[in-house]
Amino acid sequence: MKIAFIGIGRMGAGMSRNLLKAGHELVVYNRNREKAEALTSSGARVANSPADAARDAEVVMTMVADDRALEEVVFSAQGIASALQPGSIHLSHSTISTVLARKLTTEHAQRKQGYLSVPAFGRPEAADSGQLVVVVAGPHEYVARCKPIFDVIGKETFVIGTEPVQANIAKLCGNFMIISMIESIGEAYATIRKAGIDPELFITTVNSLFSSPFMGMYGKLIAREEFSPARFVLQLGLKDVRLLLDAADDLASPMPLASLVHDNLLSALAQGQGELDWSSMTQVLARNAGLKTKT
Amino acid sequence: MKIAFIGIGRMGAGMSRNLLKAGHELVVYNRNREKAEALTSSGARVANSPADAARDAEVVMTMVADDRALEEVVFSAQGIASALQPGSIHLSHSTISTVLARKLTTEHAQRKQGYLSVPAFGRPEAADSGQLVVVVAGPHEYVARCKPIFDVIGKETFVIGTEPVQANIAKLCGNFMIISMIESIGEAYATIRKAGIDPELFITTVNSLFSSPFMGMYGKLIAREEFSPARFVLQLGLKDVRLLLDAADDLASPMPLASLVHDNLLSALAQGQGELDWSSMTQVLARNAGLKTKT
Amino acid sequence: MKIAFIGIGRMGAGMSRNLLKAGHELVVYNRNREKAEALTSSGARVANSPADAARDAEVVMTMVADDRALEEVVFSAQGIASALQPGSIHLSHSTISTVLARKLTTEHAQRKQGYLSVPAFGRPEAADSGQLVVVVAGPHEYVARCKPIFDVIGKETFVIGTEPVQANIAKLCGNFMIISMIESIGEAYATIRKAGIDPELFITTVNSLFSSPFMGMYGKLIAREEFSPARFVLQLGLKDVRLLLDAADDLASPMPLASLVHDNLLSALAQGQGELDWSSMTQVLARNAGLKTKT
Amino acid sequence: MKIAFIGIGRMGAGMSRNLLKAGHELVVYNRNREKAEALTSSGARVANSPADAARDAEVVMTMVADDRALEEVVFSAQGIASALQPGSIHLSHSTISTVLARKLTTEHAQRKQGYLSVPAFGRPEAADSGQLVVVVAGPHEYVARCKPIFDVIGKETFVIGTEPVQANIAKLCGNFMIISMIESIGEAYATIRKAGIDPELFITTVNSLFSSPFMGMYGKLIAREEFSPARFVLQLGLKDVRLLLDAADDLASPMPLASLVHDNLLSALAQGQGELDWSSMTQVLARNAGLKTKT
Repeated sequence: MKIAFIGIGRMGAGMSRNLLKAGHELVVYNRNREKAEALTSSGARVANSPADAARDAEVVMTMVADDRALEEVVFSAQGIASALQPGSIHLSHSTISTVLARKLTTEHAQRKQGYLSVPAFGRPEAADSGQLVVVVAGPHEYVARCKPIFDVIGKETFVIGTEPVQANIAKLCGNFMIISMIESIGEAYATIRKAGIDPELFITTVNSLFSSPFMGMYGKLIAREEFSPARFVLQLGLKDVRLLLDAADDLASPMPLASLVHDNLLSALAQGQGELDWSSMTQVLARNAGLKTKT
Repeated sequence: MKIAFIGIGRMGAGMSRNLLKAGHELVVYNRNREKAEALTSSGARVANSPADAARDAEVVMTMVADDRALEEVVFSAQGIASALQPGSIHLSHSTISTVLARKLTTEHAQRKQGYLSVPAFGRPEAADSGQLVVVVAGPHEYVARCKPIFDVIGKETFVIGTEPVQANIAKLCGNFMIISMIESIGEAYATIRKAGIDPELFITTVNSLFSSPFMGMYGKLIAREEFSPARFVLQLGLKDVRLLLDAADDLASPMPLASLVHDNLLSALAQGQGELDWSSMTQVLARNAGLKTKT
Repeated sequence: MKIAFIGIGRMGAGMSRNLLKAGHELVVYNRNREKAEALTSSGARVANSPADAARDAEVVMTMVADDRALEEVVFSAQGIASALQPGSIHLSHSTISTVLARKLTTEHAQRKQGYLSVPAFGRPEAADSGQLVVVVAGPHEYVARCKPIFDVIGKETFVIGTEPVQANIAKLCGNFMIISMIESIGEAYATIRKAGIDPELFITTVNSLFSSPFMGMYGKLIAREEFSPARFVLQLGLKDVRLLLDAADDLASPMPLASLVHDNLLSALAQGQGELDWSSMTQVLARNAGLKTKT
Repeated sequence: MKIAFIGIGRMGAGMSRNLLKAGHELVVYNRNREKAEALTSSGARVANSPADAARDAEVVMTMVADDRALEEVVFSAQGIASALQPGSIHLSHSTISTVLARKLTTEHAQRKQGYLSVPAFGRPEAADSGQLVVVVAGPHEYVARCKPIFDVIGKETFVIGTEPVQANIAKLCGNFMIISMIESIGEAYATIRKAGIDPELFITTVNSLFSSPFMGMYGKLIAREEFSPARFVLQLGLKDVRLLLDAADDLASPMPLASLVHDNLLSALAQGQGELDWSSMTQVLARNAGLKTKT
């Protein structure tokens, strides 16, 4: 397929490479042009603007930092909304607000352009190896047309609903479940430590019940207080929890545990941990129990 | 080994049978004698009192409902403390308070009797099949002597420390991690449902990250609102959270998420859900989001 | 002084009347013109637009519903920003976001117009009788010039700082203290009621300590479950708590109790109480304790 | 009346002196005899044991530290239960658990002795000047007979119900409302401070709404970080919140704000603030917002 890819960061680079390898025709755009040009050796063409990239594309994929960046990429004078052909489809991979997801749905529809929200779970390594967990929502027809793309970037694709915003909500709720597990580990560790028990031994014990490698991995990092380099930077994690709380507020769905982790992440931020891994939120819990922490 | 087993309920029956099968000599006692007698056909002898059962035993295992029941079994006139030979060991499998665990440690030591806290994770089915996750704490020597027993009742044994109470704390913290996951699922589902997304599809999606069969099982039951028959009765789950909060208070370790689930379990109890599965706590969260619930 | 008043609702009407009575020259504007015209008999002139009203004014006072309404009144083509003379002052009385307060500060400064945030505590009755509690922040010079106005509309004026946004934050924190008191009363009442104690007798007892007529008033209304007509509509109260949480987030100041009341107000909204008084949040607490409620 | 007073601490001394001044005949007992003897010059007789004090008394008043101390005073071999005449009345002024209040009710009734729970609000200064707020519950007849006593020790008496335990619950809920106010002030101050606003100016502003001298007093002490000497020692305040949570648990009444303040008080304790005033809990909130604190 003729694909445009906007936003060649750590995630976008891996996704783009896999699309090229799979034989798709790729035009790429990045604000910092250098990162885009690194892909020319793999066969990508570099565009001068999002509009330029989108003009002849069947599908435009965007993977940018936040709402503001995506608004710029889509709605500015040289944005993709002005150039994308009717019938072509915009796939937004960024973790964005439900307000923006709804706006994109409406605005693209008015231009007879397709739109799908396609957030993904996974770290840059998973993007590199095409092992993302792809979450999609939007009209069946668009989902069907983009299936070849999902198969390239992910190991599994979940079609979560027919309204794009549903995928954004599912992604935010998924992230919420991760940070909730972190809160739970952090509180247990504070108590376990004060009782003189080794936290790694504890999590290994409990995980013989959960059998979750993911929990095992976080449990080990938290026990060892290894929060840098960050797997997921705390201030971005906090941003996602804010987006969830906004979405839940909009749906009139109270989420007290989401409020709790928000407050603890905010406390971590206030204490200078914004660039550490978001699991360093557990240091706040440890200090509140009177424990000394490394960071 | 010569073993006495006190408390032949759903868990104790399975554990006892496996010990008999493994060739151990078993004397059993149960307040309701009938349940004990069901084990005679498998080779057990039925005792008339805890003391009677304990008199000649190398190891006495107790699996009773709560602190009060265990105090009765150990410290009453016909209790095991009065009859157990010096050098013999008491293994307590019940989920009890840390106060009682400490008292048992001291009192048995004064009588030169051994004591280990040996709570276990697992449902009656796991007890039947010898697949419990065994958590032990206490002096090395006693742990070593009882290893053959742990190998029979469990699929894995974790020695968590040398003070018995540490095993009780680890068990309570493990239960806390389960109910925290339930809270997290419940809040996510309320939001997911109000957004028109199928909760089972959501949890399947998220679980491709966690890869936890345990989470998958709970996720499905909660999505289907299947809370009866209870896997773990809500009022017992609430009791365990209370024990944890008491233990954490005693250690000066604040656990705000444990407080949150306590309050939600209590609300479920106040609304008549005491006999349902403890995951029915999620109905409180659903109703607080204005959703109709089946139960 | 020559004053323009934009937003003649329940609050604005009383404030305007008092300004007229005190001899000030008043031009008024309201989207629904009828309400503005009711003031002509008291001597006010009715303007056709915010710009029209602001053109010759020394001071423009605005008292509108929310951020959106104020943005419209100030920044639209016929907004006051385009018409207010350099050196004239805009007093904003609405409870607005800190983001908008900062924007107003900057935008007016760029036009050499003055700006003060002047939220007030008090109900329409207090506006009618000139008994508001006036909270002001902004440059000393502007505060000094507007003092005669504050003396007319309020019984007391508190100058909280030199940056306008500080008054908005103080107002939001003040509202937070009220809803916190309501949460506290609501939880105490649930327990008190289940113990068979009369809540009015309880609050009278406790208030012999606090000696707060304000607490006594709320305590009585909540005890009697009198939530309609609303003194302060729940959905507006929820809006204010959201504004506070946004402001606190921006300042990296975690407010767990604000999060708690947010979640409970949201639950009340989800259960259809949006138009009741915000103290009806206590019904959520009562139901969560298994109590029957009137509403 | 012939009165015995057990527990001559800071509160008991003031109460005793006022009873003597009012012409009552007083026998006093204190574990540390010296403090009791200080009252002989005012006309009190010193007893050798609680039983000795109670033997001829119409009313025995107890004001001791906690459950354990009161159990000792009442139920030990030389306790008042063994000596108090049928028809005489025990007034318990201590803040005790509802479990003990119920036990006292039952045990005294079995001995045909009367029992009233009579907790009081007020500091030692109020005890000295007979200005306590007296909260009573129990059978009408006993309340009527003791009215002359309440009139001496308190400025106001509230009869809260006919079951003694109701007074204990009301007292615990009253204390909860105080610590809730402290939490609310603490969170507001953290935000206010980060916004560059003076907290004393803020609380003065807000209190023009509440008009509560009590709030003003706490607001000032917290703003100035004056937590020593303690008005009410943090670890005793924490004990009272624990008693409330136990009572509320027993009534199946969830109190999330009580849980929140419990966790924050516990965190303060873990950080070495146990002997400071309980309003120093606000330092935990300040530090969680990244603020430096004096203590």
